[in-house]
Amino acid sequence: MLRPTTVNDMSSQTLPPDPIERIGIAGLARAVRAGKTTFAAIADDYLARIAMLDGTIKAFVQVDAGGARRTARALDGMLAAGHDMGPLMGMPVAVKDLLTVKGMPVTAGSRVDISDLVQPEGSFVARLRRAGCVILGKTRTTEFASGGYNFTHTTPLNPWSTPDDPLMPGGSSNGSATALAAGLAALSIGSDTGGSVRIPAAYCGLVGFKSSVGRWPIDGVFPLSPTLDTIGFFSRDMADAAIIIGALDGVEIPGRKPRGLRLAKPTTFFLDDVDPAVLDAFNRTLASLETAGATVVPIEVPEAAEITEVSGVLVPVELLATLGRDRVRANESVFDPPVIKRLLSIWDVTGDAYARIAWRRRELVAIARAKMDGFDAWISPTAPYPTPRVASVTTMEQHADWNTRSSRCTRPGNLFDQCGISLPMANPNGPPFGLQLCAANGSDEELIAVAAAVESVIGAGKRPDLSRLI
Amino acid sequence: MLRPTTVNDMSSQTLPPDPIERIGIAGLARAVRAGKTTFAAIADDYLARIAMLDGTIKAFVQVDAGGARRTARALDGMLAAGHDMGPLMGMPVAVKDLLTVKGMPVTAGSRVDISDLVQPEGSFVARLRRAGCVILGKTRTTEFASGGYNFTHTTPLNPWSTPDDPLMPGGSSNGSATALAAGLAALSIGSDTGGSVRIPAAYCGLVGFKSSVGRWPIDGVFPLSPTLDTIGFFSRDMADAAIIIGALDGVEIPGRKPRGLRLAKPTTFFLDDVDPAVLDAFNRTLASLETAGATVVPIEVPEAAEITEVSGVLVPVELLATLGRDRVRANESVFDPPVIKRLLSIWDVTGDAYARIAWRRRELVAIARAKMDGFDAWISPTAPYPTPRVASVTTMEQHADWNTRSSRCTRPGNLFDQCGISLPMANPNGPPFGLQLCAANGSDEELIAVAAAVESVIGAGKRPDLSRLI
Repeated sequence: MLRPTTVNDMSSQTLPPDPIERIGIAGLARAVRAGKTTFAAIADDYLARIAMLDGTIKAFVQVDAGGARRTARALDGMLAAGHDMGPLMGMPVAVKDLLTVKGMPVTAGSRVDISDLVQPEGSFVARLRRAGCVILGKTRTTEFASGGYNFTHTTPLNPWSTPDDPLMPGGSSNGSATALAAGLAALSIGSDTGGSVRIPAAYCGLVGFKSSVGRWPIDGVFPLSPTLDTIGFFSRDMADAAIIIGALDGVEIPGRKPRGLRLAKPTTFFLDDVDPAVLDAFNRTLASLETAGATVVPIEVPEAAEITEVSGVLVPVELLATLGRDRVRANESVFDPPVIKRLLSIWDVTGDAYARIAWRRRELVAIARAKMDGFDAWISPTAPYPTPRVASVTTMEQHADWNTRSSRCTRPGNLFDQCGISLPMANPNGPPFGLQLCAANGSDEELIAVAAAVESVIGAGKRPDLSRLI
Repeated sequence: MLRPTTVNDMSSQTLPPDPIERIGIAGLARAVRAGKTTFAAIADDYLARIAMLDGTIKAFVQVDAGGARRTARALDGMLAAGHDMGPLMGMPVAVKDLLTVKGMPVTAGSRVDISDLVQPEGSFVARLRRAGCVILGKTRTTEFASGGYNFTHTTPLNPWSTPDDPLMPGGSSNGSATALAAGLAALSIGSDTGGSVRIPAAYCGLVGFKSSVGRWPIDGVFPLSPTLDTIGFFSRDMADAAIIIGALDGVEIPGRKPRGLRLAKPTTFFLDDVDPAVLDAFNRTLASLETAGATVVPIEVPEAAEITEVSGVLVPVELLATLGRDRVRANESVFDPPVIKRLLSIWDVTGDAYARIAWRRRELVAIARAKMDGFDAWISPTAPYPTPRVASVTTMEQHADWNTRSSRCTRPGNLFDQCGISLPMANPNGPPFGLQLCAANGSDEELIAVAAAVESVIGAGKRPDLSRLI
């Protein structure tokens, strides 16, 4: 099934191991400082893996092999000169094709011409550069980061698939999720407006972190909904996640133990329609957390059901505001069918209706914030059912149902202005399930600490066996 | 011309002097502590003045004489018990009928039934109560604080009027402005979404302060535009203004001298269409400030012209969102003509158009904020022409023109998210003109200090000669 990409003809070579395998970002960073490897060699290994695997995975829409190699070599020179930029120095990163990276066109996953709307490279990519990351390329997104699947565009392959049983990667940041799950980067960047980092993290067995609105300004990110858009990242485990946020923001993640964690478990809506296998894994996780000294308290947040009336209008109205009515009308047949359907569904929403929805959202944020009081995080499954098969989504109706169900537990986090994270939760019969933790806007570092404490109980996620795909 | 109100039949009595006349709030507060007067006597004096003058001025829509007297007596008891609540203790206040005061219905100046939308008494009135203010009653506002004049509702009389030459009070907080100008309260409260405090302050010869969005939460204030709505107050002079904000918020106003003040004078748009007499007074004011050691630097803020496309849509769309389409349709003939005209003008504004306008406003805030950098305040006339005659506004066209011109220099302050203040500026031939100072959101106390320094150069405003009206 392997088809080499055009990055390099490496089809005759053997697949180099993922440089962060087993040692993580911290171990790899130490290995470079110990003279055991170089940033150039790391970049070469990832580029080789991309060349050999991405024809199958299809995570990347652009790879800048030359630029990555030149940057990695220059970083080796910097380190040799005694200029150490910290633990992300030389770490190859894959960036969702919604963020502008200088020298790489932005498509936002669309065939619609948006070149006039693309912003210059923004402050988040500048943060990656200051941390010394090596930008490998841009990764696939569903059109305008809207929904989890496109009918008329390529969808990356979930690395947990087998040739006989291809699995959905989730969306919208599925290129960045599959790239990391397949070992095609040391970290990867996505965006999350309704679950677009957390859902593919859950389906691909990764850690997926969605920052609070305002933590990382969204300049340079093609807007889906400026009200709800946030940047996030994928990592293998919480050790890497703590290094990533620590290096990007110059912060220390506080230490937390499972003992004393106060977790709220929203029941209504969140747990109304959960697959029995997921629910069983979730309940076993809660039991082991309680055994480890955490407290889990059921709470009621029926307001989560308002994702349909609030987020479901707010987001497409804001996308329409960005794209403009003329462009949408002129490109009706160019959009992927679910995307144009969403845009046309809010065509007649009036200004006062939008204003009321925006106000209702502010009320909901306050209501939810009060319900977060006294808890370290809310805990729930990330997606209420196991990683879906590709074969399960062939009609528009299946797509709509799949999208609605996949995002049922993640969209409330955006509605309620939370930061959130998905952790892999062991599933004996297939790819991991997602375990979601959400917390109030601004408590990003505390949430990372809580997630690390949870991971210390449930263990880090396993890696997919790529040999089944090759 | 005097017609006693029903508060009390005092037509046979002589008019007591305004208790704060010449001594201000501070002097009156001292007089109480020195045993020269009591809060009860002060309340009686204001109630007597209301009874004798408000039939002519028509500032109040409700007066709670009994409640005010009982509160004042109780405050006398508090003070006698050694419980001093500070300089606003026992000061009678008039509150715009847009703010809920417990026990008094809210009409928001409208005949439309809005009883289902009225909020409970909010945090600002609670602030007045904690400071020990005596609430005299509710004052007139144009319908839904929208515009400066109603065709089908009573407009208060500007106390600078003469029987032969009635003058407009400005709007929308014209009840609170005329109440204070006529000495019917020691301080009064308004709201400002486009100039609704600053314009009537200018036309009535008062200090009118508009707070920054966020300083005083607008809970308990009937919304015109939650994005732009702010609370403000009227005072006689800057000494009283400093006492009011100091006592309400528990802050000290820093001391500023005219020397070293850095004032920006926006030219384009602000000064494009200014009456020669106002411009002359403004230029003489600037010259005297420069003589006193202030620096005045011309700046260009052509973005102020976007008040029409941005605020002019945002505000009525948000009012429509509050009222709801059904209520507006059912009451088309109940609204005052300019108000329903504004509501219908934005009937077809779409959600995406509103979103774009809200985003543009955020851009404008950032642009303007950068232009405020390095300056203590922007300085301009408050209204570009003298206090208008009632006779000048009889047609809808005159009204629209009058509204647009009156608010030309104030609406940019709301658009740009500033706090602002209007000071009386001497006019040898009639009521004072308004001098406006605006500063960045959050610099309310600094702006009060700057305005006090400016007042120390130009002098406090004169009082109208009410004997001409009686």
